[in-house]
Amino acid sequence: MSQRIAVIPGDGIGTEVISATRTVLDAVCRRHAITLDYDEYDWSCERYLRTGAMMPADGLDVLRPYDAILLGAVGAPGVPDHVSLWGLLIPIRRAFRQYVNLRPVRVFDGVDSPVRGALPGEVDFVVVRENVEGEYSEIGGRLGRGHPEEMAVQEAVFTRAGVSRIADYAFELARTRRGHVTSATKSNGIVHTMPFWDEVVAERAAAFPDVRWRSEHIDALAAKFVLQPGSFDVVVASNLFGDILSDLAAAVAGSIGIAPSANLDPTRSYPSMFEPVHGSAPDIAGKGVANPLGAVWSAALMLDHLGHTPAAQDLVAAMEATLREPGTRTRDLGGTADTRTVTVALLDRLGPVS
Amino acid sequence: MSQRIAVIPGDGIGTEVISATRTVLDAVCRRHAITLDYDEYDWSCERYLRTGAMMPADGLDVLRPYDAILLGAVGAPGVPDHVSLWGLLIPIRRAFRQYVNLRPVRVFDGVDSPVRGALPGEVDFVVVRENVEGEYSEIGGRLGRGHPEEMAVQEAVFTRAGVSRIADYAFELARTRRGHVTSATKSNGIVHTMPFWDEVVAERAAAFPDVRWRSEHIDALAAKFVLQPGSFDVVVASNLFGDILSDLAAAVAGSIGIAPSANLDPTRSYPSMFEPVHGSAPDIAGKGVANPLGAVWSAALMLDHLGHTPAAQDLVAAMEATLREPGTRTRDLGGTADTRTVTVALLDRLGPVS
Ligand SMILES: CC(C)[C@H](C(=O)O)[C@@H](O)C(=O)O
Ligand SMILES: CC(C)[C@H](C(=O)O)[C@@H](O)C(=O)O
Repeated sequence: MSQRIAVIPGDGIGTEVISATRTVLDAVCRRHAITLDYDEYDWSCERYLRTGAMMPADGLDVLRPYDAILLGAVGAPGVPDHVSLWGLLIPIRRAFRQYVNLRPVRVFDGVDSPVRGALPGEVDFVVVRENVEGEYSEIGGRLGRGHPEEMAVQEAVFTRAGVSRIADYAFELARTRRGHVTSATKSNGIVHTMPFWDEVVAERAAAFPDVRWRSEHIDALAAKFVLQPGSFDVVVASNLFGDILSDLAAAVAGSIGIAPSANLDPTRSYPSMFEPVHGSAPDIAGKGVANPLGAVWSAALMLDHLGHTPAAQDLVAAMEATLREPGTRTRDLGGTADTRTVTVALLDRLGPVS
Repeated sequence: MSQRIAVIPGDGIGTEVISATRTVLDAVCRRHAITLDYDEYDWSCERYLRTGAMMPADGLDVLRPYDAILLGAVGAPGVPDHVSLWGLLIPIRRAFRQYVNLRPVRVFDGVDSPVRGALPGEVDFVVVRENVEGEYSEIGGRLGRGHPEEMAVQEAVFTRAGVSRIADYAFELARTRRGHVTSATKSNGIVHTMPFWDEVVAERAAAFPDVRWRSEHIDALAAKFVLQPGSFDVVVASNLFGDILSDLAAAVAGSIGIAPSANLDPTRSYPSMFEPVHGSAPDIAGKGVANPLGAVWSAALMLDHLGHTPAAQDLVAAMEATLREPGTRTRDLGGTADTRTVTVALLDRLGPVS
């Protein structure tokens, strides 16, 4: 039985890393007798500049029947963020209730972290970011536009259902890992929502007596990512805190070029979306030098989500082997390899076709 | 003419570092013919546990006539944060319109940063945090407490006056430094307040054509603190973003034990407050091993604010000399010196009495 994947390469290096990833996916799927059917969509800033919209009006309906969405990157000079993000990425996350943004963080052998204490094998954690509510609500606005007394308000909205399900996801994930959850909070400064977050997380924690957990204020936690990056297993955080922590963690791990992400609907009512953390990088686009590993790792998360865990593990093992060799590292990692060299190295390192 | 200082040593190591700082302040003031009159207040968690209040009901009125407030740290096991912070620290910041939270960040000679690229002499910047509005508003609440449909909302409130004055402060400060401002934003994700922040900062920037500036999203900016810590001069940020960035920056600089802060009312209508970034550290309290430099550096900021810039510079020079010697570094810096040893070293390194 085949599964259907909607592919949105997007802009800039998005198209390059997705092309590399499709090649590698084909190879790994052949080895595991997996059939994935792909449809590619040209939804992007490039399309926006041509037609006035990032995606067609019925874009979400088009995507709904798919088993998963694989996205490269969107963004282009001259297209404001609110167009590229609110015209594609954020509507997908929200319409498809992808309430988990999963961001694995690892320091790989062969990758130098900018942080002294972040050693290969020792830093291996996952940021579980709440992805559909919290600080990113659309509620709020401006009063007295242009006048001296003007003000702007933004409402952060947290629901019991929303906090419970992200906490449950984090505690369940910790069970399959090293059994520890860190919950990001700011209940000493942000008085209404974060004490509520803490309460709900504590309640859910009670249902997982086998998982240890603690709460940390976001300011101290950001500092600890630098001071003790090896001390985390699963970090659960609100939309904004998770956004900040996961980018910081990617930097600590040594390259934003490798960092993957999954936007998951764990109920599987809707397709989940997989995308590298890096953006469209117009500065290096078209040169064939982008690091494809962020997209490849995201594809591994997709395989895992689709039930193909052994194939996902093979892909990650091939990544590990590729990163160990200096000759197959891209510029962002201090190497000189181009996208094609890395792609070929990944293919070489996949196990034989069985 | 003398100036009056209200001293609130607080809890735990707060009392130890303030005692050391008073000794050093006496010495430097003698050398510069400065007269400071001190009154000490026992406002603290210890007082709360004894009397039920962190400070007396008329505490703010007591403080109002002072020229400055010097605070150690508040916090004790068994006293919830909302008591210790909202019963003392936060009311002072707000009642006295201390709208600037200033946090200098430097990697000193002799201090090892956990970040490879953070070298002494190269990392020297200031975080200018908005301190009285934004994400820390009291507005919001909870609906349906305890029920499945419960929700909590927190309103972030930004005013044109509030954003303008913090931007002005940052641009003016940059003029006295290396002429560059980085503004922390999240206008791609947080739709109502951060685009407003960006607009107002851009408007104020126009009044400082001699200062260069750029805007960075908070997630990318946090990553950059680790990847390129030497690339900042003045970083201006909202209350929450500034809180996160300044703790992260203190970690990058090598020790939270050295980091100082100033809560300033630049209009001088009210007293400003100076406090080290570290907390009351109950685990090492009473052992005489706390690093006094966070409090000493905060006192230097206070001297500067009171118009005694040469004395402030002397104090910082004495700190620099003390940190250069391995024998006069505390445990948090990998040394073995106790609070007294560091204090004596500071006294030795102050210039001769003129
Ligand atoms: C204690 C807490 C409320 C405070 C803040 O977030 O403002 C602290 O983190 C600080 O930075 O002074
Ligand atoms: C692009 C932006 C809206 C987005 C976010 O903040 O969610 C990005 O930073 C991310 O993490 O995917």
